[in-house]
Amino acid sequence: MLNYDYQNPTRLVFGRGTQKQVGALVRGYADRVLLVYGGGSIKKSGLYGEVTASLRAAGVSFTELPGVVPNPRVTLAREGARLCREQSIPFVLAVGGGSAIDTAKAVAAGALYDGDLWDFCMGKKIERALPVGTVLTIPATGSESSPKAVLTNEELRIKKSMGSDLLRPAFSILNPELCETLPPEQIGYSAFDMMSHIMERYFTNTPHTEVIDGLSESLLRTIMKQALILRGDSKNYDAWCELVEAGNLAHNGLLGLGREQDWACHGMEHELSALYDIPHGAGLAAVTPAWMRYAAPKHLPLFGQFAVEVMGVRGSLRDPERLAEAGISALEDFSRRMGLPVRLHELGIGGGDFALMAEKSVQKGGGTLGHLEELSARDVENIYGLAL
Amino acid sequence: MLNYDYQNPTRLVFGRGTQKQVGALVRGYADRVLLVYGGGSIKKSGLYGEVTASLRAAGVSFTELPGVVPNPRVTLAREGARLCREQSIPFVLAVGGGSAIDTAKAVAAGALYDGDLWDFCMGKKIERALPVGTVLTIPATGSESSPKAVLTNEELRIKKSMGSDLLRPAFSILNPELCETLPPEQIGYSAFDMMSHIMERYFTNTPHTEVIDGLSESLLRTIMKQALILRGDSKNYDAWCELVEAGNLAHNGLLGLGREQDWACHGMEHELSALYDIPHGAGLAAVTPAWMRYAAPKHLPLFGQFAVEVMGVRGSLRDPERLAEAGISALEDFSRRMGLPVRLHELGIGGGDFALMAEKSVQKGGGTLGHLEELSARDVENIYGLAL
Repeated sequence: MLNYDYQNPTRLVFGRGTQKQVGALVRGYADRVLLVYGGGSIKKSGLYGEVTASLRAAGVSFTELPGVVPNPRVTLAREGARLCREQSIPFVLAVGGGSAIDTAKAVAAGALYDGDLWDFCMGKKIERALPVGTVLTIPATGSESSPKAVLTNEELRIKKSMGSDLLRPAFSILNPELCETLPPEQIGYSAFDMMSHIMERYFTNTPHTEVIDGLSESLLRTIMKQALILRGDSKNYDAWCELVEAGNLAHNGLLGLGREQDWACHGMEHELSALYDIPHGAGLAAVTPAWMRYAAPKHLPLFGQFAVEVMGVRGSLRDPERLAEAGISALEDFSRRMGLPVRLHELGIGGGDFALMAEKSVQKGGGTLGHLEELSARDVENIYGLAL
Repeated sequence: MLNYDYQNPTRLVFGRGTQKQVGALVRGYADRVLLVYGGGSIKKSGLYGEVTASLRAAGVSFTELPGVVPNPRVTLAREGARLCREQSIPFVLAVGGGSAIDTAKAVAAGALYDGDLWDFCMGKKIERALPVGTVLTIPATGSESSPKAVLTNEELRIKKSMGSDLLRPAFSILNPELCETLPPEQIGYSAFDMMSHIMERYFTNTPHTEVIDGLSESLLRTIMKQALILRGDSKNYDAWCELVEAGNLAHNGLLGLGREQDWACHGMEHELSALYDIPHGAGLAAVTPAWMRYAAPKHLPLFGQFAVEVMGVRGSLRDPERLAEAGISALEDFSRRMGLPVRLHELGIGGGDFALMAEKSVQKGGGTLGHLEELSARDVENIYGLAL
């Protein structure tokens, strides 16, 4: 186990009806907020009305920043930062999924920065940020208590993240009822995104990490079980409770403690969704099996443990190659049952841009991507090819 | 799953050599501390020298409060609170195990309170507290990030807890190397105490708690495995890493989210150690199997799941009574392998005080103890009898 230094002060307010507390929670910080959200879905569901009523009742005024889209754009975050500066708004409240929250975080950092907030995606350190609160409507990205925000620069067609413990939300309201209106395909995207957050940490070269290994395996099993329940019954409150809680634990930092992490699949997916604007969870589901088949031969015990402890493979233990492959196949079976793609062609993606995307994917790491195996651009290109 | 509101802002600084950061960490809060510790062990080990050198190097002066004993006394905490008030000390630093940390927490609350800090154990709400930091030497109580402190009132011969989120430490330094000099019996006490923190939450009437159930089962398995490694090799750093991390997770609040909790075994044990001054972990190991045998017949599926998922019992699934008993027996087998008592007579305790202790144990709950089953004083007396 590696040394670590960890703090996650985000307050989690979980359960039925908790969105009605938002005004009181904000009031502990500010009497004026920037309200960040997407399109019409929170208006149609009535959530917008509940949130704004709660803010008004608590004496909190708000300026609105609607229009967040999936793979959220840096231009909208810049607009939000400008509004906060011009109107001296001291708090940013996101109502939505990871895209709204990531936009809010970028606004929070940009509002107290004289330059362009995209600098933070290019490595500039975040020194200050406004406090952020969230009302979560889609469990998936874990952004509701993570220190990260992922933005797409639509001019440059690249997707990059900024990060700082200053970006961990002050509070997050997690009401699983709000997920009951999600479209069916979103359940699969959500489940695979949170599973990927766990797997990016689970596949490690660090020895002696049994506490976290065990928690990770348990959480992956629970996510798959509950996601399949929701696939058949998308209004199942109890199953949403499990998925909302799991999505937070998957990415709040706990499961990365004391270990080298990988993040190659996220790196490869970010290139895909930057270029093709596909759902993040779908892109992850399509590239992960290919990455696994590329990495497994050099890490057979690790992928064997994944097969047995996560995917529940029985038998085959005397043949490590077959065991590893059985685990990967079982993950693909889960994806198919969830209606997720397991290959890129199912997303309408061909091979034309693989070399270029592979080059871009290794730039941040100084020529390699990932840590379980340090992948060269050529390796990444091969994995995209395997995923076709 | 029940609604919840959870925040744990304690910063965890984990790993080899981290005690050397203590001065710098304290300096973020104060330039003067009350240093709370026990007897000579931290002087013999050299830890006292390292901590005080780090404080001095950071320009932090300190007043000492030595003399903490297991089952820490309210009188020493009162003395510490008096020192903080008289010398205007703004920060309390504990170096030791749960007893030193609990003393430090009580000092922190008492220093800003005009009355007697024992009031907080009698239900008085804690409104303010000094910040606390810890350097942990014994993983067991989870006090390094919990909101609770347990104190013994030696005049009244009772043991009670105070609690407030204000008592969660600001930071805790967790260096598993510091555990390598613990005496062998302490390993068993530590392991059983952390297991009990999990089991008190695991055995619940709340349905639909699968995420936390799974994490709890995994953590219990890991603790038993790693504790047995340490029983044979008490200087195994890797195993101590797992146990230190597990001990924190067992009691940081995560595993109690969204569920009714029990706490009958802790309640019964507190009466035992208040009267007989036995190690808390030993008392827990002796009463838990009796509580389980008392509760299991009404909760066979729950105890069946414990048997299979925690204790690894195979077979017997078609006979729920036998399955539950097999799980309880397996827990006793674990305790015996760790050198722990599984009955009260092994601790030299006879039956003379059972009726009195049973009466005291149900007072706080208004006549009952625990929640899986709400035990009357008569029930508690019967369980003590079963544990004889």
